[in-house]
Amino acid sequence: MGRNRLEAFSDGVIAIIITIMVLEMKVPHGEHLHALLPVLPVFLSYVMSFIYVGIYWNNHHNMLQASGKVNGAILWANLHLLFWLSLFPFVTSWMGENHFAVAPTELYGVVLFMAAVAYLILQSCIIAAGAPTLRRAIGRDWKGKASPALYFIGIVSAQWSPTAAKLVYLGLALLWLIPDRRIENLLIDSPER
Amino acid sequence: MGRNRLEAFSDGVIAIIITIMVLEMKVPHGEHLHALLPVLPVFLSYVMSFIYVGIYWNNHHNMLQASGKVNGAILWANLHLLFWLSLFPFVTSWMGENHFAVAPTELYGVVLFMAAVAYLILQSCIIAAGAPTLRRAIGRDWKGKASPALYFIGIVSAQWSPTAAKLVYLGLALLWLIPDRRIENLLIDSPER
Amino acid sequence: MGRNRLEAFSDGVIAIIITIMVLEMKVPHGEHLHALLPVLPVFLSYVMSFIYVGIYWNNHHNMLQASGKVNGAILWANLHLLFWLSLFPFVTSWMGENHFAVAPTELYGVVLFMAAVAYLILQSCIIAAGAPTLRRAIGRDWKGKASPALYFIGIVSAQWSPTAAKLVYLGLALLWLIPDRRIENLLIDSPER
Amino acid sequence: MGRNRLEAFSDGVIAIIITIMVLEMKVPHGEHLHALLPVLPVFLSYVMSFIYVGIYWNNHHNMLQASGKVNGAILWANLHLLFWLSLFPFVTSWMGENHFAVAPTELYGVVLFMAAVAYLILQSCIIAAGAPTLRRAIGRDWKGKASPALYFIGIVSAQWSPTAAKLVYLGLALLWLIPDRRIENLLIDSPER
Repeated sequence: MGRNRLEAFSDGVIAIIITIMVLEMKVPHGEHLHALLPVLPVFLSYVMSFIYVGIYWNNHHNMLQASGKVNGAILWANLHLLFWLSLFPFVTSWMGENHFAVAPTELYGVVLFMAAVAYLILQSCIIAAGAPTLRRAIGRDWKGKASPALYFIGIVSAQWSPTAAKLVYLGLALLWLIPDRRIENLLIDSPER
Repeated sequence: MGRNRLEAFSDGVIAIIITIMVLEMKVPHGEHLHALLPVLPVFLSYVMSFIYVGIYWNNHHNMLQASGKVNGAILWANLHLLFWLSLFPFVTSWMGENHFAVAPTELYGVVLFMAAVAYLILQSCIIAAGAPTLRRAIGRDWKGKASPALYFIGIVSAQWSPTAAKLVYLGLALLWLIPDRRIENLLIDSPER
Repeated sequence: MGRNRLEAFSDGVIAIIITIMVLEMKVPHGEHLHALLPVLPVFLSYVMSFIYVGIYWNNHHNMLQASGKVNGAILWANLHLLFWLSLFPFVTSWMGENHFAVAPTELYGVVLFMAAVAYLILQSCIIAAGAPTLRRAIGRDWKGKASPALYFIGIVSAQWSPTAAKLVYLGLALLWLIPDRRIENLLIDSPER
Repeated sequence: MGRNRLEAFSDGVIAIIITIMVLEMKVPHGEHLHALLPVLPVFLSYVMSFIYVGIYWNNHHNMLQASGKVNGAILWANLHLLFWLSLFPFVTSWMGENHFAVAPTELYGVVLFMAAVAYLILQSCIIAAGAPTLRRAIGRDWKGKASPALYFIGIVSAQWSPTAAKLVYLGLALLWLIPDRRIENLLIDSPER
């Protein structure tokens, strides 16, 4: 199993996830602009999920570029990550259709939390299989390790204020929107592949 | 992040967009030909959107072929373009199901407009990252710069006549249907890749 | 635009078409085997369409392997073929849900007919762009040229007997199921790519 | 038809299958956690099917990596396998929505059974086309040959206890979850590709 296969398959799955989310936006029946109003919260959830999936795609590839050989553990850790990403369309739609109510907002956070944990597991597997560039690049990895904790705070805060939870999710998205320069910088010196 | 990754991911997303649009054509319940009549406007919208997505796919690749290194700005400008393209199935279906009514025709134009703007932004990012071939190829780029303005005229004209708006959209599609020979010509002399 | 891009994009679209057709098989509500009965005609249509799309994928690649440079005409002829293939899920579902009634069976034939014509057009464009191997390989191409005529006979015969039309479609599928050895044979001597 | 084409197309189809299954989880209408209860069995079926499709993807590629030239028989044996895999979303959804009732659990087993048989057929075709590495790697292949028999036991046992059937399916999934080290070991000595 070469790294290219793993990248191509992950690319395919992530491309499908990011695109089918839009299918959850049910086409309204009226022909006037206000018919779009009920779709608006679903649209906003879609935008946030699009950004999140975009971030995962971006960082996933930076990470794989810095990886060495692919073994069985990496393969299943990767499928585990894709599993949680595949739940994005479902939770995005549930949250949007219920106008960011408590339970859907919490479940959205749970999927974000699990995806972040799955990402950390995949990262550990790649480092364990021998990827010194990645190890140096991530350093102490405060961003990766803090994320699950912050998602957890978001989930709990949704109990009192779904808006607070939303802000936590959005803040973390913005935090990750900044490309992982640590890996990028180290890769710049590598020979062109 | 190599250029190939970006191309492969964009290809995947665009292939999915162009294909799932057809899922919005709900299968009619009757078994006679006239049961297809309500599907006809959705079909016509589908044809127009298919052509538009085809054009974007074509020009997107000509542009990337003339690009140099991929950086974070290009990556997110590309995701931004894919975001607007991903709304095609939704607006295509809404316009078709409402028989080209005013508001849906306007919204369709808004997505065309935003996609054209996103394309220009992506083009600027690629040129800013250093792509002299692309810079020379597009020249003054009157077609790229005029498109958003013309979409805007289409959107406004829909207020009085959705048919006029449709003709503007169709005219622009035909204008872009002609492959971007400027880039193609310059690439012909490049070594086979 | 390299040939690889065209192949990869076509692969993506065809893979999506062949897979989303199954989404048209609505999950029955009952839990007993006889709840599957209404799904059976849709399933049978799905099997036939799966075989047809598989044939197109197979022959499409044999043809592209024997092609030379890709130009604008080939690109749009290819998109034109993909357009008709993208209508397979719709007509498959309509035919299946109406238990092979006259009009849906005819429309299914029309899409088969148009896809066969689109394939011939694409073939001409590739030969016109200079593909001597392909030209020699297809020879007089009686199979390619006879297909549209036979689909036409199937469409007309559906007026009297949808079963006859079905048999024509099935017979043509079997005829094409045999891989296009003409091209394969000529490619065997080519150097490994 | 190169092996890469076959891998890329199969990757695409499998990536779509594994992702669209989640579309069968209908978004609940209530906004409270207990609104998720009816979705739970569908979710559990989804998890099992995700693991199964992941296993097929993994083993499919190990097998193709050890294969030689691709001929028409391999191509159609591969499409035959993809056909049965494409039915996973349908049977997963039917089984989940009917809370693992007898008939849906049996049908799920039938699709697992047919996919396992299709896998064996594909394996035979590849070996027949000349793949000594694969032949040595699989050895007597007790796992591959026993699987259809065990699925059959699962299907029959569902008549008395769907739970027993489920346990058989789960047990076989776990058995296959262990990557096929036989092929992996033999490939390790091969030159990097």
